[in-house]
This record gives sequence, C-alpha cells and structure tokens, in this order.
Amino acid sequence: MSEKGQEQKRLILVSNDDGIFAPGIRALAEVASEFGEVAVIAPDRQQSAVGHAITVSDPLRVTPFQINSKMEGQAVNGTPADCVKLAHDKLLRRKPDLVLSGINHGSNAGINIIYSGTVSAATEATILGYPAIAVSCMEFSESADLSGAQEATRKAIHYVLKNGLPAGITLNINAPGGPLKGLRWARQANSRYVEEYEGRVDPHNRPYFWITGRLEILDQGDDLDLNVLKQGYASITPIQYDLTAHAFYKKQDKDIG
Amino acid sequence: MSEKGQEQKRLILVSNDDGIFAPGIRALAEVASEFGEVAVIAPDRQQSAVGHAITVSDPLRVTPFQINSKMEGQAVNGTPADCVKLAHDKLLRRKPDLVLSGINHGSNAGINIIYSGTVSAATEATILGYPAIAVSCMEFSESADLSGAQEATRKAIHYVLKNGLPAGITLNINAPGGPLKGLRWARQANSRYVEEYEGRVDPHNRPYFWITGRLEILDQGDDLDLNVLKQGYASITPIQYDLTAHAFYKKQDKDIG
Repeated sequence: MSEKGQEQKRLILVSNDDGIFAPGIRALAEVASEFGEVAVIAPDRQQSAVGHAITVSDPLRVTPFQINSKMEGQAVNGTPADCVKLAHDKLLRRKPDLVLSGINHGSNAGINIIYSGTVSAATEATILGYPAIAVSCMEFSESADLSGAQEATRKAIHYVLKNGLPAGITLNINAPGGPLKGLRWARQANSRYVEEYEGRVDPHNRPYFWITGRLEILDQGDDLDLNVLKQGYASITPIQYDLTAHAFYKKQDKDIG
Repeated sequence: MSEKGQEQKRLILVSNDDGIFAPGIRALAEVASEFGEVAVIAPDRQQSAVGHAITVSDPLRVTPFQINSKMEGQAVNGTPADCVKLAHDKLLRRKPDLVLSGINHGSNAGINIIYSGTVSAATEATILGYPAIAVSCMEFSESADLSGAQEATRKAIHYVLKNGLPAGITLNINAPGGPLKGLRWARQANSRYVEEYEGRVDPHNRPYFWITGRLEILDQGDDLDLNVLKQGYASITPIQYDLTAHAFYKKQDKDIG
C-alpha cells in the first residue's frame, strides 16, 4: 500500500462477508481498480448472515492474502464490520474515498438486509463517514455470471462520484445473474421468512433443526427491491441506520407511567 | 409448557444475548411471570454484539435449562434471533402474546442498537408479528442492581397492554443501575465509536488488535437516548426495521445511467 507518487489516486476499500477467497470479492476488486487504488480487507472465512456483528471478546489478527496476480489483500479473523472498523482505525495508511462490499453470492434485498454481513460492512463505512456501496448477486453459485452486478456497481460509483452521497446513507445493490438489463432505484420490501425450520433426528436419536423457509412479501409496489429483481432489473436502495420510529415517537408524551 | 387449565393465561417469551445463565434474564423472567406464563428460550452461551446474526450453516440444538427453582427454560446453540425464530416456528406450543429480551448487562443506546443481539431478538419478534421489548442496564457487573430496569419493564408492559403496539415497532429500553428515577421516551442518538483498536504484540512476536474505543455523540437534544440516560432516567425508544432512506429515495429518478 505504498503511496509513492500516487497521492492523487482514489483509494477504494473492498470487503465482503463470503470471505476474502470468494469469487465475488475478486469481481468487485476488478471494478474498483478501474476507479483507483484498491485495498482488499475482508474476513478470512465465510461470514454470511452475521448481521452487524462485531468481535468484542477475541483479539483480531491480520494475514496477507493474494487476491490475484496483481493484487494482495489482508484477511482478518473477524466479521465484515470488524474489517471495515480495523481498516479505518489501523490498517489503511490514508482514509478511503469509497468503500465497496461484496459481490455477495445471494440476494440481500427485503428483510435480508438486516441479516446481511455484506450490507453491514457498507453501513459500518457509512457510520465512519465514507461513501459506501453494498453489492449482491441473486445467484448462489460460485460460477455465477457477475457481469451485471459489476456493471451496476460501475453505474453506482459514477453516480456517487458525480452527486456525492448524503451523510448517513448507504447504497445497497442487488442484481440478477447475467448481463445488466438496467439499474433501478427501489425501496426495501417489507417481508419475512415463513416455515423456517426443518426438524431432523441425528444418528444418535437426538433432534436438531436446520433453517430453511421462504421469503414472503408483506408489501406492494413495482418499486420494491424484491419486485424490481423479479422484473429482471438490478435494484439500488438507499438505506440508513437511524432506527427510531419517528412518527410513533412524536405521538408520545415525555414520560411513561 | 403444559397448557392444562391455563388457556386464558398470557404467554410471554423471554430471550437475551448474554446467555440463558445470565442474572439479567432471570430478573426479566421474574417480571414477565407477574404478567403471565413464561417461556425462557435463549442462547446457551454469551452472544454479545452479534447484531442480527442468524445461524445458516449449522444445525440448531435445544437443551433444557433450569432458570430458577420454579422455572425451566430451553438453551439453544445459536444467536438471539435464532432463539426467537425457532421458538416461533417449532418450540412454543402456542403463539406468545409478548416477547421480552434482556436484561442486557451493558447499554444498547445510540449506535449500539445496530450491534446488539438483545435488540435483535426483540426486532425478530416484531418481524414475526409479536409485540416486543428489549431491555438493557448500563452496568456491566453481574451483581448490578437491576431493579430500575425491572420497574421500567413493568411500565412498558403496562403501556403495551393498554395501548397495543403498531405493526413493525419494537420498544428498546435502557436503564441506569439502581432504582428507577423515571422512564422517558427518547430517540436513538446519532453516534459512533472512535479510537477503536489497541494494537498489541503476543509472546510469539505476532501483532493483534483488541477492540476498545469510546462513544461519540454526533447529535444534540435532551431527547436523545444517551442524554436521557446521562440525566439519570431510563430511556424507551420505539425502533423500526424499514431501512429505506425515504427522503433521499423520493428525490431519485426511476433508473440510474
């Protein structure tokens, strides 16, 4: 991460939740390299569905990792949010101009946003004051065609470079596999999982449960992220982390009881 | 969890993120038992700062656990959100009337909300359609005086039983240790951690990092959760999980690029 003679070049931090070895992070780092110098700092193992977890009770360690023939990254024994926090506070020699997270193998639309480690890395960057974009592809396969997700990322980066991004706002992209049909602004669909667990019995006659289930949309509109994806477009949703239910809050007295 | 002869009694699910053995969950179960039948279903180990993580790649197992002389609970080898999901889908014989999470040892105000396993259990209950309250005490000590947090919980339960709670809204209580001075409605303070990591070198000369840091408020107002707590009151913040940044979203065109 020498800065010799490239003081003017943009620095882009890339992280994910599938782990630093995942094809998705290589695909995202490639896109990032078109816009500036790239620092890849990501979990050393799969961290899917960790939500906005951070590591409190264990020390974090950092190991070099060869991303491809031209790029070396750093693997952290922590969560996506840990990676971004540690990069910000200790690992980067200068502050990044942009933070990208992904490309996740699997959708992070609808209620999935709150379970998503991919999104949490980008949200953490936003909290720390950096423009940030999370990117996910609906296809789980490691050999998925990520070209559409990459192209959607390019468009979103151009948008951010041109317009900036207000403080506190993170962009969350989801794309179908294959080439990009278009990138459409969308809102998070109110949704939830139903029929979630399958009960089984192990060879020692002890019960256990596997998570499964299907996503149910509790909301209507062509502008929902899940519906934009059904129409074959990639979706881009601006999200924020002020969780206060302001309308409800304003109706309350000062004290209870 | 026999229902013989008590079909009319309220069922209250109690969970947490400190683990089923924590003093805080016993204190919360005691309060819950004043309002109905109690089912304690909680992680079998400490799960602090897991955020809204769910367990996808491992099977979940359930073990009986004696909470106190009168109450038996169920320990799950998963996260707080896992506990609520599994309780809802498989472990409870009937649907709960109320879900409580806590009493957490440590504050979940300001930005801590997004890292909090305690809050995620309550949010997950809200997603599943149940009224839910998360409760935290600012004191980390296992011997903290939780009487104020308990009293705040009673007041919040009375509020919910009297007024109901709109769909999609979770209540998040934080209380100082000791007796209750009052329970005040508050909004989530925009805040973040600074100076987060301490670098050390291990006996084998390898570097590692411990998380540390202090919370910085980026917001102003007597009505912030963190400021209500500074004034010695307990705070209660209505939160929601629609993360769309609606004002920003409404300003965008349909497509990008």
